[in-house]
Amino acid sequence: MEFPLVQLELPSWLSLRFEDDSTVWTTREERMHLVIELARANVKKRTGGPFGAAIFERDTGKLIAPGVNLVTSSHCSVAHAEIIAIMIAQQHRKHFDLGAPGLPPCELVTSCEPCAMCLGAIPWSGIRSLVCGARDEDARQIGFDEGAKPVEWIAELQRRDICVYRDILRNEAVKELIDYRDQGGLIYNSREG
Amino acid sequence: MEFPLVQLELPSWLSLRFEDDSTVWTTREERMHLVIELARANVKKRTGGPFGAAIFERDTGKLIAPGVNLVTSSHCSVAHAEIIAIMIAQQHRKHFDLGAPGLPPCELVTSCEPCAMCLGAIPWSGIRSLVCGARDEDARQIGFDEGAKPVEWIAELQRRDICVYRDILRNEAVKELIDYRDQGGLIYNSREG
Repeated sequence: MEFPLVQLELPSWLSLRFEDDSTVWTTREERMHLVIELARANVKKRTGGPFGAAIFERDTGKLIAPGVNLVTSSHCSVAHAEIIAIMIAQQHRKHFDLGAPGLPPCELVTSCEPCAMCLGAIPWSGIRSLVCGARDEDARQIGFDEGAKPVEWIAELQRRDICVYRDILRNEAVKELIDYRDQGGLIYNSREG
Repeated sequence: MEFPLVQLELPSWLSLRFEDDSTVWTTREERMHLVIELARANVKKRTGGPFGAAIFERDTGKLIAPGVNLVTSSHCSVAHAEIIAIMIAQQHRKHFDLGAPGLPPCELVTSCEPCAMCLGAIPWSGIRSLVCGARDEDARQIGFDEGAKPVEWIAELQRRDICVYRDILRNEAVKELIDYRDQGGLIYNSREG
């Protein structure tokens, strides 16, 4: 019996996007603007769903890792934008804990509030803050299943010293979701039994 | 700016374990016995934590993908045993949905009840049944953080037509956790803020 290797790579358009780009994204709005741009480009380039994310050094705004949803293109249901960004950031740091002693605090910025899986992944990742654009209900509104989350999910993150900022450029973020639906984009992973 | 590739590979001992092995694992107990063996070997070989999982064709018992916890060795907090098994199985099927029409139903067997992240990943994976050894509280008992899960997590999976079987060889599964703690194994990812 042989088992395949799992290899997850950013699409080439995304790597090109950051070639020769030394921008520092200072504010939460600037960071959100970037991940919404990635969500939009991901749909346009047909590499996945309308979701973008990125991990920044929280205090400097330096980009550590971008992420887009690669579920369909990489045959991987785990490949949500947040998970891709987390995995790339950890490879970059060569550490499974982005909050390990000696490392600068990291912030995860996502164009839409995390689904149950990504929410569960956040405490293990070591990020210290989470910035969200669209709300959970905005994704559900266009047919995406966000999964079963604890009702008090924000308090649960805060209890672990992870700050949560919601509704950053929410209208812009929601627009990407609605545009995707209106273009007839595939709503995958909405199995309801 | 350049970003690293994410590559997740089974440890060589695990690939060797299945070389020339054409066993079919018929019962839930046989499948659990295998994943407990993987959990134990993962600690012994120092490739990660005391957790093993596998995805089988539910009705035939054919092994599709094994998984072990590779968090520390692969610098990846997402690399829990269940996630590794899901990702490998999907690469094998070349599809992000293991429950897609035309594919034989798949079963995820795990030596310990899934943490919040793995629980959230299960509906997206397309598996049709989940078989657990140790309970959530058994992992917490030795210091592992399982995260915040919905109280009614079993009912939530069942509502999506995913069957759940608990306590399969629970005592054997718990023994691996206790042995790990008693050997002074690293309890990573238990940041509490």
